[in-house]
Amino acid sequence: MLLVGWNKRVQRGYPGPGWKNTTQQIIMSMLNIDLSFRSHTCGELRPADVGEEVTLCGWVQYLRQDLFVIMRDFSGLAQILIPQDEDKMNLKTALCDLPPESVIRVKGTVRLRPDGQENKMPTGEIEVLAESVEILNVCRKLPFEIKDFVKKSESLRMQYRYLDLRSSQMQYNLRLRSQLVMKMREYLCNVHGFVDVETPTLFKRTPGGAKEFVVPSREPGRFYSLPQSPQQFKQLLMVAGIDRYFQLARCYRDEGSKPDRQPEFTQVDIEMSFVDQAGIRGLIEGLVQYSWPVEKDPVSTPFPCITYEKAMKDYGVDKPDTRFAMKLMDISETFHNTEIEFLKDALNQPGGCIQAICIPDGAVIFFVIFWYFFSKEVSVVLVKADGALKSPLNRLMPASAKQQLLQMAQARPGDLLLISAGTQECRPLLGKLRLQCAELLEDSGVAVRDPSAFHFLWVVDFPLFLPKEEDPDQLESAHHPFTAPLPEDAHLLYSLPHKVRGQHYDLVLNGCEIGGGSIRIHKASDQQHVLETILKEDPSLLSHLLEALDSGAPPHGGIALGLDRFLSIIVGAPSIRDVIAFPKSFRGHDLMSHAPDFVSEDELKSYHIAVNWPYIKAHIC
Amino acid sequence: MLLVGWNKRVQRGYPGPGWKNTTQQIIMSMLNIDLSFRSHTCGELRPADVGEEVTLCGWVQYLRQDLFVIMRDFSGLAQILIPQDEDKMNLKTALCDLPPESVIRVKGTVRLRPDGQENKMPTGEIEVLAESVEILNVCRKLPFEIKDFVKKSESLRMQYRYLDLRSSQMQYNLRLRSQLVMKMREYLCNVHGFVDVETPTLFKRTPGGAKEFVVPSREPGRFYSLPQSPQQFKQLLMVAGIDRYFQLARCYRDEGSKPDRQPEFTQVDIEMSFVDQAGIRGLIEGLVQYSWPVEKDPVSTPFPCITYEKAMKDYGVDKPDTRFAMKLMDISETFHNTEIEFLKDALNQPGGCIQAICIPDGAVIFFVIFWYFFSKEVSVVLVKADGALKSPLNRLMPASAKQQLLQMAQARPGDLLLISAGTQECRPLLGKLRLQCAELLEDSGVAVRDPSAFHFLWVVDFPLFLPKEEDPDQLESAHHPFTAPLPEDAHLLYSLPHKVRGQHYDLVLNGCEIGGGSIRIHKASDQQHVLETILKEDPSLLSHLLEALDSGAPPHGGIALGLDRFLSIIVGAPSIRDVIAFPKSFRGHDLMSHAPDFVSEDELKSYHIAVNWPYIKAHIC
Repeated sequence: MLLVGWNKRVQRGYPGPGWKNTTQQIIMSMLNIDLSFRSHTCGELRPADVGEEVTLCGWVQYLRQDLFVIMRDFSGLAQILIPQDEDKMNLKTALCDLPPESVIRVKGTVRLRPDGQENKMPTGEIEVLAESVEILNVCRKLPFEIKDFVKKSESLRMQYRYLDLRSSQMQYNLRLRSQLVMKMREYLCNVHGFVDVETPTLFKRTPGGAKEFVVPSREPGRFYSLPQSPQQFKQLLMVAGIDRYFQLARCYRDEGSKPDRQPEFTQVDIEMSFVDQAGIRGLIEGLVQYSWPVEKDPVSTPFPCITYEKAMKDYGVDKPDTRFAMKLMDISETFHNTEIEFLKDALNQPGGCIQAICIPDGAVIFFVIFWYFFSKEVSVVLVKADGALKSPLNRLMPASAKQQLLQMAQARPGDLLLISAGTQECRPLLGKLRLQCAELLEDSGVAVRDPSAFHFLWVVDFPLFLPKEEDPDQLESAHHPFTAPLPEDAHLLYSLPHKVRGQHYDLVLNGCEIGGGSIRIHKASDQQHVLETILKEDPSLLSHLLEALDSGAPPHGGIALGLDRFLSIIVGAPSIRDVIAFPKSFRGHDLMSHAPDFVSEDELKSYHIAVNWPYIKAHIC
Repeated sequence: MLLVGWNKRVQRGYPGPGWKNTTQQIIMSMLNIDLSFRSHTCGELRPADVGEEVTLCGWVQYLRQDLFVIMRDFSGLAQILIPQDEDKMNLKTALCDLPPESVIRVKGTVRLRPDGQENKMPTGEIEVLAESVEILNVCRKLPFEIKDFVKKSESLRMQYRYLDLRSSQMQYNLRLRSQLVMKMREYLCNVHGFVDVETPTLFKRTPGGAKEFVVPSREPGRFYSLPQSPQQFKQLLMVAGIDRYFQLARCYRDEGSKPDRQPEFTQVDIEMSFVDQAGIRGLIEGLVQYSWPVEKDPVSTPFPCITYEKAMKDYGVDKPDTRFAMKLMDISETFHNTEIEFLKDALNQPGGCIQAICIPDGAVIFFVIFWYFFSKEVSVVLVKADGALKSPLNRLMPASAKQQLLQMAQARPGDLLLISAGTQECRPLLGKLRLQCAELLEDSGVAVRDPSAFHFLWVVDFPLFLPKEEDPDQLESAHHPFTAPLPEDAHLLYSLPHKVRGQHYDLVLNGCEIGGGSIRIHKASDQQHVLETILKEDPSLLSHLLEALDSGAPPHGGIALGLDRFLSIIVGAPSIRDVIAFPKSFRGHDLMSHAPDFVSEDELKSYHIAVNWPYIKAHIC
């Protein structure tokens, strides 16, 4: 019964409204008929439908000349012709008084538009002569018009999110998100036998988990915690013999006000048993390829892979944007015998070096850069048209050094050199400048990065531990304490832990980290050693995990992809808010419903908590 | 590259391990090769693999005669033959000392078992002659054995959930859940064009939402709330023109300690625009049919549909178990002229009636029932072998009444009649007894319900409002305040609201409510009237929803299915805990990690809350 009309419409080659074109979308549209009031969607009508009696449901986009209603639904627009006959005046009256965004149901007949009245809309060759109209809901005066070109402030968009989501861009973003996630699930579940397992979000606070929301329970003093990721559960599922787990997991992180972070976000969470790094990387490359939007250029695999060390050396950052070069270079040699005091000092310290980046055609941003870094630890050198250098360093450098510098940097007239001296710690500074210069150049109209390019990159061989910022003699996990060492470094775990590299891998897309994971420690003794001896943590807090590892844990590893970030890069959105249906503001507020909100003392009683009002209470309430 | 071996293995008709048999499972197994250490899974080996060199990874199920290792992975068991040659003694030594549940990788060659040593396991015709073995992890002594027949207490299972999940039943449950959910998604997304939209779980407290967990924010006194369902968001998505929304939504309900409830649970949440009740029902019937496990008898549609009134009349409950009859009947007529005092009194009151159920072959439970209801408001009548009645009522009834009673109830010798007198409110009592008797009969070995039967049922035409328990002059929503009235009752909304029936529908399976939904009010004025005038609630708390309805809201409706309950019925589990990977105990505790747990005062500071310790503090800490 559900397939009524299917054959007929497939035969006439249903073209699909706008972005939808696959067979499954055709099936969908076929089946509209039985479930909904409409017979067709607005956006699907074509000359092949001429003569057909149709029922459309949707919104009044606008009226034109008291003659046409442009009607919209999720699939697109259709032009409704209002009959001008005397006996249909009621119809005209009803429609012409109707505010935009009112909701109507129209019955009518599809006809070709008169010659010369066609336009380039997908439905631009036809119109629907209305026979009857039902007004389903009248719309009030709205705070902004639902037209793509109408600019509205972020806060207005958030306050009236249900209107903002009517824009074609937001419709595209949400529908693409749904489709991409569906493809990911097909790949993981149907192709690779992964098991979709839901894990709890009311969990126990992680030791030191400062960024975890707490949830009071009805037992005095006891709190659940909203986990930052299902890390412990995914490992326990491997111990449980699930073999391959995935979940589109809701995660929580209370970071206060941070730009473009959300207190709740979604990660594609994956874990496998009996796998190595190459296995996980292969899986993810296949996942991206399989779920990649058909309207984009296909992604080629395998993705390039570089070590953490190489990334820092070449790009000054562990998540390099490889869409453009401008790599860091070590130009210490040029200044081997320099008399320039600060360069000499830099080279004389242990591990001292001089690093530079060369910005092709950087001349256009010379002044911005120059003033921006006037007092900073970066020297700016412009290569003038005649090959001479313009720089405070110029007169301090012998000609041979200048020659050597230009040669090493392969700098040409019009290029800009940024030089930083010190230890290897000057690399991150140049890494940041590299990105800022790319943006400045692009703002000046110089093409640096192809906006349609997607550069995936694996970064591997991270250090397993890093010195603690507040106490550099102590070590902390570079990622998390469950990452296994590289097999060739494993023996160092018990002698020189700071030298151990971990089996951690990050997936980077266009300079953003979109995923990260690792092969995990699967032996309880190693895990205990890392927690207790190296990290000086109380292992009893993770006793259930240690016990689990001791109960026949298989070798396992996994990864988590940040879905919101990944999608925002794919659709080219400036913020992850544009790929989330109902995001919070950067202060963590829902501007539509005004969450978070005050709760009465009485309502808090059953949770045995009370609010500690600060002294400015009077001002807040 | 990923498809290496695909053709070869499809050609030889890979039979699939145990419960897995579909093409997609074949693909999956094909692809194991490239991602994992193993070449094959344990459970997939068959005589066709004889001669093949294989690598298996898995757990030591048990050792037999120092000659065999029975090895297990998620797909099943395989028998490993330990070579007895002198030069392979190291292999024998390593394996024979290994505790059960240790993790090993075995390389070897598949061979047929010697004549007479085959068994009925799926891999019972072959064995693998080990050539090398690697011990991946040694298992400690476990708190219980991983064997299906080993009984363990619920709390032990929960404490060591990662071991409990290794049982074949739990593996089946979790894998079935994953597959069923995948099929649901395919149906909604790919067949019907639904958009999978994630909605926030950090939201605003619903007015009067006593069962909502609160989450303190960093702003003093302000709390998020974990919503009981995405009700508001799904309606807002319809206003936003998403047209068809679904989500496997995590929902939260703080009900304290209730048997077989979970503080977090999952619902299949669905909403559509331009749809009526029949459309939603048709969609869900298709959904159940499409996702129904292939190993079960297929489900036939449409599901039967009865009104709330009929359900109460026939079954005394709004979610009848229709797998058996024993319907309620009105036997008032029989006692029209009775002299039995309490029956006379009952009939004389307004709406008074006498109701009964007839329990076929109920004689076997006569004594249990009789003593159980000795002092309750139910009269028990046994029809003896000779057709005479055994009952306290017996001598008070004239022969004609007895005759009439037996005829009306179609009672035969050996049957039991339960009679209750009063107003219509005696129906729920008989409704409960009907279920209890079915259970008692089944416990006594009488077949009442077919354990493999699945009876779906729609219940419709519920009252829209009910008198408040604490103040019967006030009305409250029977389900929620967003349900639209039946079109034919809509006019009563403004005159006789207590008479209005709602466009609400419940989906019942084997006597459990597994879903419910409604066509919603889509006009702001109606919604405001319901909230303000009928329910006496402050409409400003839902101002964003009222504004949204006033902004061109389409007619819409939806449904939510309780996934955990649905699954537990399908797999025949006694509790929803058996279809959830990491459930909480009935007191809301995670017995493995000990959540919820104490949190330091310091950690609570940033949330501006303090614990109100009760006086027994000293005992708790």
